[in-house]
Amino acid sequence: MKMEKIHINQVKDHIGKQVTITGFAQVFRDQKNIKFLLIRDISGVIQVVITKDKEDAFKNSAGLSLESVVEIAGLAKEEKQAPGGFEIAGESITILSLSNPELPIPVVEKGQQEETDQSIRLDWRWIDLRKEKNTLVFKVWTVMEQGFREYWVNNNYIEIHSPKLIATASESGSEVFEVKYFERKAYLAQSPQFYKQMAMAGGFEKVFEVGPVFRAEPSFTSRHATEFTGYDAEISYIESHHDVMAEEEKAIAYALQKVKDAYDEEILKVFGREVVVPAVPFPKISMKETKEILAGMGIKGDKDGDISPEEERKICEYVKEKHGHEFVFITEYPISARPFYHMRDEKNPKITKSFDLLWNGLEVTTGAQREHRYDVLVAQAKEKKMDIEHIQFYLDFFKYGCPPHGGYGMGPNRMIMQLLGLDNVRDAMFVYRGVNRLTP
Amino acid sequence: MKMEKIHINQVKDHIGKQVTITGFAQVFRDQKNIKFLLIRDISGVIQVVITKDKEDAFKNSAGLSLESVVEIAGLAKEEKQAPGGFEIAGESITILSLSNPELPIPVVEKGQQEETDQSIRLDWRWIDLRKEKNTLVFKVWTVMEQGFREYWVNNNYIEIHSPKLIATASESGSEVFEVKYFERKAYLAQSPQFYKQMAMAGGFEKVFEVGPVFRAEPSFTSRHATEFTGYDAEISYIESHHDVMAEEEKAIAYALQKVKDAYDEEILKVFGREVVVPAVPFPKISMKETKEILAGMGIKGDKDGDISPEEERKICEYVKEKHGHEFVFITEYPISARPFYHMRDEKNPKITKSFDLLWNGLEVTTGAQREHRYDVLVAQAKEKKMDIEHIQFYLDFFKYGCPPHGGYGMGPNRMIMQLLGLDNVRDAMFVYRGVNRLTP
Repeated sequence: MKMEKIHINQVKDHIGKQVTITGFAQVFRDQKNIKFLLIRDISGVIQVVITKDKEDAFKNSAGLSLESVVEIAGLAKEEKQAPGGFEIAGESITILSLSNPELPIPVVEKGQQEETDQSIRLDWRWIDLRKEKNTLVFKVWTVMEQGFREYWVNNNYIEIHSPKLIATASESGSEVFEVKYFERKAYLAQSPQFYKQMAMAGGFEKVFEVGPVFRAEPSFTSRHATEFTGYDAEISYIESHHDVMAEEEKAIAYALQKVKDAYDEEILKVFGREVVVPAVPFPKISMKETKEILAGMGIKGDKDGDISPEEERKICEYVKEKHGHEFVFITEYPISARPFYHMRDEKNPKITKSFDLLWNGLEVTTGAQREHRYDVLVAQAKEKKMDIEHIQFYLDFFKYGCPPHGGYGMGPNRMIMQLLGLDNVRDAMFVYRGVNRLTP
Repeated sequence: MKMEKIHINQVKDHIGKQVTITGFAQVFRDQKNIKFLLIRDISGVIQVVITKDKEDAFKNSAGLSLESVVEIAGLAKEEKQAPGGFEIAGESITILSLSNPELPIPVVEKGQQEETDQSIRLDWRWIDLRKEKNTLVFKVWTVMEQGFREYWVNNNYIEIHSPKLIATASESGSEVFEVKYFERKAYLAQSPQFYKQMAMAGGFEKVFEVGPVFRAEPSFTSRHATEFTGYDAEISYIESHHDVMAEEEKAIAYALQKVKDAYDEEILKVFGREVVVPAVPFPKISMKETKEILAGMGIKGDKDGDISPEEERKICEYVKEKHGHEFVFITEYPISARPFYHMRDEKNPKITKSFDLLWNGLEVTTGAQREHRYDVLVAQAKEKKMDIEHIQFYLDFFKYGCPPHGGYGMGPNRMIMQLLGLDNVRDAMFVYRGVNRLTP
């Protein structure tokens, strides 16, 4: 007899019925005439009780090791003593995959015991991912990403998948990875920036891309990785970077509403945080004003027109208190702090039509209106001492008609950190890559 | 006065009103007292008429070159003589970006003139993309991809972004790209296969991934590229590869329905093809039976258990005629034709629980149930002469409990080829990458 296969969170709807569940054996308590198992699947955890009279099941469960994978059939019951209030009276148990009893890291931490060191957890990432909080990270990610995509698709953005293998190491000062490409060299793209702009020159008007970006920076901070996911959007026929910010803040509010609708309770339970859907428009403060506010708070930071991580935290605290908002756009960065392709302000050519977005003290976005006028772009590239030959393929995009445009790049790993209150980006990526880490 | 900014396909809803449009100047006809422009945006093309009495507009349009980008304000009108039946009586024209008058390739082919050679078109891809048919490719792609994702998300798949930088060149016989990774070597992932399986060992149950895959094969065919997009899905607790096929065919039917709903008419108009939403379940034929059918048709092909491109076409013609279906799963490939990690049939250990999916003569998918039992997997790897040390990180995924699972990898570039009847994959990717092509 094939019983109905259900997820563990559906047991409560099948009381008094025969059901079949599958999952990992998480805890095991063996008494003389009765065995208690805790079984975990993607939806939750449930207690299974196996009594001695169920001979085969009783015998099978004797050979079970922690984290083995099993299929269990039995009667769904309410049981006040059981964790969660339900249990299954097991009638048969099939071992689908027997775990080595020597688990390298625990899935369930015992009592007040501190969590295993991160670098060891990352060595055994697939076991680490079994923890409720780590699985929830990626359930939330899935909804967040789909939220952004729904916003873009509903608003007629076209999706692109731009090449990650590129001919020249060019765009920015940070280091790029070199690839052996048949008889020559290629490089890994640090961002889809140039190709989003190519789509604008191609008349696509609005595009988005989700894909990996690669940075060969020897950074060892809690916010950096050598490979991570980027969300990118670019739009045509804008009047200034303010049109870009207006689009971005709507996309963020839409995506976070989707997350709140789907996982508000679970995020509160597991991470102790409430999902706040930000009000639109977001607060916007120019870089100049930001520095003045920080000076007023007695904080001295980077003077080259950029702001330090400490300044990012402080200005966010200020905005939170003053405007009750978790987000703030810092606008109009000086040209020294921005790449050659950012458009400059018509009235004040020392500043760019650019912005960063900070969320609760962390930079999650960089954006700008781009310079689409060929001659101006070449002049700005020369002023920045760019090697024109290396970027000629890019400059060519602007020779045969290109709409005015701008866009933003966003880091979903950092978004997830801020959303869930994670203190390290390594916990916000499926598999982390750093200078010293290429496995698993 | 700021007039309402609209898209060209909305002009028909604004007859008698002042409107503003933006776009590329596609055709230009200059008469003594009147100028005719065709302006193209992402939604369509419209005629703009500028008469001499609109002095500024008349003067501005005199300096216009083909493919320049303009903003035009004027009166929306019905006009039987105009292409499409509508036009704008232009009152002002602002040149947003002036094109170099020497266009390297035409956007609109003249009359019966053959299209520019593909390699030249690819050199100027951003101009090539302005053609209606090329823009439509990516509009369709956007809806198709969102369709697949909706299917997956609605069915509780978790999204992963697995690393493209990996430590060992391992999985298959085809060549991998080598990356200089600080003081050591890394490689670019040929598929997310191992990491999808890691997610299964992590208890994720169902996952999907959309991302780039890299193949260092020196292939110059119309179906190959060195970098392309992969759609991947993997599911746990299956009984066989038939559960995987059942999931895949539902996802395909769902996505193609979305494409049909959104672009049926346009695809018919531009590509002369009807979008056929395939009936579920798809026809399934074992490799053995496939060979018998082909032999009955007098076709001799590869004998090593795989089928040649010609055989793929012929068996699809057979299925189309016999079952009226554009898709067919070829199942149960012999172990010689499949990688070590495909599970073998319990009753006939010479064949694998695997499949390919063909669509109108082209392979678009490979899938299988995977071997999740550590000891069996190691034995199969040894039999295939794999270097165990190089894949130990992968084998470890199966040591600490792993549900039975399987999945598929799909090529959206090839899906788009078959959907729109393109004869070359290079036209089905935003920017093509091949042995001799790394730009733009």
